[in-house]
Amino acid sequence: MPDGLGAALEEPIFERAAIIGVGLIGSSLAHVMRRKGLARAVVAYDASADVRTRAREIGLADVVPESLAEAVEGADLVMLCAPVGAMAKIAAEMAPHLKPGAIVSDVGSVKASVAADLGEALPAHVHVVPGHPVAGTEQSGPDAGFATLFRNRWTILTPPEGADAQAVARMTRFWEGAGAHVETMAPAHHDLVLAITSHVPHLIAYNIVGTASDLEDSARAEVIKFSAGGFRDFTRIAASDPVMWRDIFLANKDAVLEMLGRFTEDLTALQRMIRRGDGEGLETLFTRTRAIRRGIIDLGQETAAPDFGRRAKED
Amino acid sequence: MPDGLGAALEEPIFERAAIIGVGLIGSSLAHVMRRKGLARAVVAYDASADVRTRAREIGLADVVPESLAEAVEGADLVMLCAPVGAMAKIAAEMAPHLKPGAIVSDVGSVKASVAADLGEALPAHVHVVPGHPVAGTEQSGPDAGFATLFRNRWTILTPPEGADAQAVARMTRFWEGAGAHVETMAPAHHDLVLAITSHVPHLIAYNIVGTASDLEDSARAEVIKFSAGGFRDFTRIAASDPVMWRDIFLANKDAVLEMLGRFTEDLTALQRMIRRGDGEGLETLFTRTRAIRRGIIDLGQETAAPDFGRRAKED
Repeated sequence: MPDGLGAALEEPIFERAAIIGVGLIGSSLAHVMRRKGLARAVVAYDASADVRTRAREIGLADVVPESLAEAVEGADLVMLCAPVGAMAKIAAEMAPHLKPGAIVSDVGSVKASVAADLGEALPAHVHVVPGHPVAGTEQSGPDAGFATLFRNRWTILTPPEGADAQAVARMTRFWEGAGAHVETMAPAHHDLVLAITSHVPHLIAYNIVGTASDLEDSARAEVIKFSAGGFRDFTRIAASDPVMWRDIFLANKDAVLEMLGRFTEDLTALQRMIRRGDGEGLETLFTRTRAIRRGIIDLGQETAAPDFGRRAKED
Repeated sequence: MPDGLGAALEEPIFERAAIIGVGLIGSSLAHVMRRKGLARAVVAYDASADVRTRAREIGLADVVPESLAEAVEGADLVMLCAPVGAMAKIAAEMAPHLKPGAIVSDVGSVKASVAADLGEALPAHVHVVPGHPVAGTEQSGPDAGFATLFRNRWTILTPPEGADAQAVARMTRFWEGAGAHVETMAPAHHDLVLAITSHVPHLIAYNIVGTASDLEDSARAEVIKFSAGGFRDFTRIAASDPVMWRDIFLANKDAVLEMLGRFTEDLTALQRMIRRGDGEGLETLFTRTRAIRRGIIDLGQETAAPDFGRRAKED
């Protein structure tokens, strides 16, 4: 298949899958579920009436009901795709309407707090299998999704101790059907790994773009004009959904502060090298960091094209 | 023309242009000079014999001589494309061989120190017009160049006080011929603007990739695996040429430390917001930073495609 997702499944993994929250991830899930036949019926719901209307306009799902209760009713998969700070409230509200034996999963970027929230709010007769697809773009909303978002990316499942093995296996097949590689780990370990691969990078991108936007007006105009020197890459990350990221930093506070502490220590050492004119120290670090990128490209998590392939080489 | 560079000039701007240093920028200049007919003859020289051999193999220039003296002899444009820390030495070595009336320019990312180095080393009978094309990729070496690198990007010229107006106008035409927009400013102002748009972003990218590479082995493998969450964007920047960047930080020490100080203050404030759970403060900052990216895209300095257009939307 030209999109690299392969043929649709002969038998769907779920009869009725409900996507709660139709942003980038929720809408991408809707696309790939239908493209690959992962669920016989796809239900999409969003707390925003505007988003629901838009989801209907673009035909994102088989049904876009008007209430959360209707959305989850009869679903054998409920996929929470809302900001992590909203999970507890949604879980409590939908709890009485869940079908016994249903799997409740999510796509939140923080896992320990979500696992606790869901475990507390949901009845014992559903299977909670939290997850996190490590994939995204800086865009958000129901129009941002596309079926190949998860292709060749990792999804991390963080089932609680004593989780139903069949439910975990089903979620694994589901994500593999969406094109992802699946790995299972403890929630706290996930949160620490993601703090350094995702949360702190976002934090410092937000921070430097903020520093630049605090410059006086004339300097700010120049920053925008001459951004091709490196700055514009940071602005992509710093254009990500503000509410989603606010919630991530609040929910993963401890791991983020731990990794931020290491980052700051290292930055202080680097600052000292510059102040003292330690060229050898700088060059050693800058040489070492090249190897990491090589590893990422070799693992297929990145394009080797210069400048991310932003522009084709035309000569 | 399909590459967007337009037709070649009817009359070249220079008779004989010498490129000293054949890395990404030098080789891109060679390509665009020939593509656009900016110089009747293009001479390329590099201090490394391997690079000279490679430049000959790929037919990068009309002549690739064996010495710096031969390279600059008779040239009416000498373009220094070496790391900024090497400029003083190169200038002193080539000074006796320069043709009277020649223009000596450069492409260094720091301008005040280069202007001083060149002014000191070069004879009064040449015109010094330092410049900086704000363009690049993370790749380096004679094979990395391409003719469209400068298209629609800015080149900043920083002529010294009392510079020959005709020489400045000629360099402006030269860069416009290469597809760039040209702006003139004072060297110190250039260095301050680039500190925030380029140098500090590179520094913090090198730093976070360094922090990650210091993790224990198992965690480092995971960082590479789950890099799609944001980290891999930083690794692109942190894969840039180590010697070039070492020299930039040493040559632009004051402006880099000034901007790094602002960045660190802001990061400390952000850290405090996370520790105290100030969701409103976080959301306000994260919303503000989106506007900067909008400005960059509107000015044509960036693609609006999600994820830099790394992958096409296939559904």
